[in-house]
Amino acid sequence: MFSVYKSLEEKVNALKTPLKSPQGDNQDDLKQTLTEVHNKIKPFIHRTPVLTSELLNEKAGCHLFFKCENFQKMGAFKMRGAANAILSLSEEERQRGVVTHSSGNFAQAVALAAQKLNVRAYIVMPENAPQVKKDGVKTYQGEIIECESTPEAREETAIKIKEEKGASFLHPSNQDEVIYGNSTAAMELLEDYPELDVILAPVGGGGLIAGTALAAHYFGNGCKVIGGEPFEVDDAYRSLLSGKIEKNLNTNTIADGLRTYLGDRNFPIIQRHVKKIIRVEEDEIINAMKLIWERMKIIIEPSCAVPFAAVLKNKEEFATKNVGIILSGGNVDVTNLPFG
Amino acid sequence: MFSVYKSLEEKVNALKTPLKSPQGDNQDDLKQTLTEVHNKIKPFIHRTPVLTSELLNEKAGCHLFFKCENFQKMGAFKMRGAANAILSLSEEERQRGVVTHSSGNFAQAVALAAQKLNVRAYIVMPENAPQVKKDGVKTYQGEIIECESTPEAREETAIKIKEEKGASFLHPSNQDEVIYGNSTAAMELLEDYPELDVILAPVGGGGLIAGTALAAHYFGNGCKVIGGEPFEVDDAYRSLLSGKIEKNLNTNTIADGLRTYLGDRNFPIIQRHVKKIIRVEEDEIINAMKLIWERMKIIIEPSCAVPFAAVLKNKEEFATKNVGIILSGGNVDVTNLPFG
Repeated sequence: MFSVYKSLEEKVNALKTPLKSPQGDNQDDLKQTLTEVHNKIKPFIHRTPVLTSELLNEKAGCHLFFKCENFQKMGAFKMRGAANAILSLSEEERQRGVVTHSSGNFAQAVALAAQKLNVRAYIVMPENAPQVKKDGVKTYQGEIIECESTPEAREETAIKIKEEKGASFLHPSNQDEVIYGNSTAAMELLEDYPELDVILAPVGGGGLIAGTALAAHYFGNGCKVIGGEPFEVDDAYRSLLSGKIEKNLNTNTIADGLRTYLGDRNFPIIQRHVKKIIRVEEDEIINAMKLIWERMKIIIEPSCAVPFAAVLKNKEEFATKNVGIILSGGNVDVTNLPFG
Repeated sequence: MFSVYKSLEEKVNALKTPLKSPQGDNQDDLKQTLTEVHNKIKPFIHRTPVLTSELLNEKAGCHLFFKCENFQKMGAFKMRGAANAILSLSEEERQRGVVTHSSGNFAQAVALAAQKLNVRAYIVMPENAPQVKKDGVKTYQGEIIECESTPEAREETAIKIKEEKGASFLHPSNQDEVIYGNSTAAMELLEDYPELDVILAPVGGGGLIAGTALAAHYFGNGCKVIGGEPFEVDDAYRSLLSGKIEKNLNTNTIADGLRTYLGDRNFPIIQRHVKKIIRVEEDEIINAMKLIWERMKIIIEPSCAVPFAAVLKNKEEFATKNVGIILSGGNVDVTNLPFG
């Protein structure tokens, strides 16, 4: 399995479109870059609300501030990164279109951002992807290219589109422009609540936690960043321990958005700026998700219940603190829920 | 069945606690009363947000403004009426406590409002009420008095408490103070969006639609009010036609909050100020509920999907208009959903 991942990684690298990066993400001018990114994408995103709940504060023993990216356009924070990545392309590049392979939120985000910018979006999806996901992409006029349901087929099809159409490849989590776009969720949260002690985000491919960490570093007031990760897919936890990108040994988690692994662009940011990663069990994720549904009356994906589960599991660490949580998305199949 | 209802109605009348009403609800000083009510209850309620959705606007062909009472304290608009009813009692009356019989949202609303005002709340519930509803009342320290699961037993138990404790009886929908409290949801909606052409609310016991109608009459700019009602429990629709309070012939609707019938305090207001009532089928309610869950990522009860279903069913009537919808509550059992 490791060797498959290895060869995949090489293919992903082959897919990379060189993009205009700032001079390095440990430079102070990155703060200016992030502000520019935020201003640039504002017309294409919602400024999502921050919700609070007295009852959940009581349960958790701290002050919780939920940044509701489930209310974002197309239902997830992915819209921020996708919008910034497309806006960062030259006019010539935009005319040739963009391509990604995803069956999740990033596919819809790229399709919608491209639609708004009059750019063609080629979305490579496995032929057995759920109809609801295909419909989501079609809603935003993304062009679906079906392929076999193997990682290799997805990569190869994306490479083919990139070569045939000259389209720019967009990576869901391991691309600077995507990471910086993701930063804007935590930047808004810190604008609303500058005195947060800590912000938690889920860790999947690493694009959200890396963006959040940059935002807290440049715009927080001593604000720490902590990741939440399921035990079942604890690649990031182990990567921070070992100092190199580890892979998941299985994908048996209900948090379907977190089954991916870190990349060479986001891992160094995570190493530098993320304080720690807290792991949680599957039943803890489901309980946290149910609590948010029942008490806050909002629909969140299993993935974004993970950080809240981490807080509930470690109450002493967060006691009386001001705790921000990025609720990353709300795209869930309401006909197939994990509540018993 | 009618005779049972008739005798129930007599008992309900016997339960009424005389309350300080304004001089008549068609007097202009009612406008002043409603403003005072709003100011009085503000410390005990959330000012709930108004959400919009481009996608649902497209589907409906009009501009929708959803007043999210599912985010209200205890999860429903009922908090507004319960708070005002208790605040309208004298100090002496408050010391003797309040009593209601309800297994739904009003029970929790009375318990929470009473808790905040240091008033004892006696909640009569059938012994076979779902544990989740009993737990809800206990969360707010309401004192549950169990009785047999018949309407007669509930009425008799409430009368007994009223007599034994001297507690004031609070009616979920047919009491002026409750109706005026309910008005404040639409008042806030009209403060935020003064140019609404119409506001829709669901019709159950009649307390919310009556309160909404008063708000639109006194604070709207030619704003009409339309009710939404399931075909299965269309007592209000038939009552407006016949000019007298009709009863439901069954309670076979998924909209469990709308199985009750109108009362002598709210029916005259509805006759005077509600333009019409639109009836919808059960599958239309479920479809509307699913659309709001999936697209807006918020949890609403079946009852409050009814007005949105009415808009979707009558697109021509609402075309291009500014349409407010009161989303009345979000207390739903997430382990038992109607989505197939």
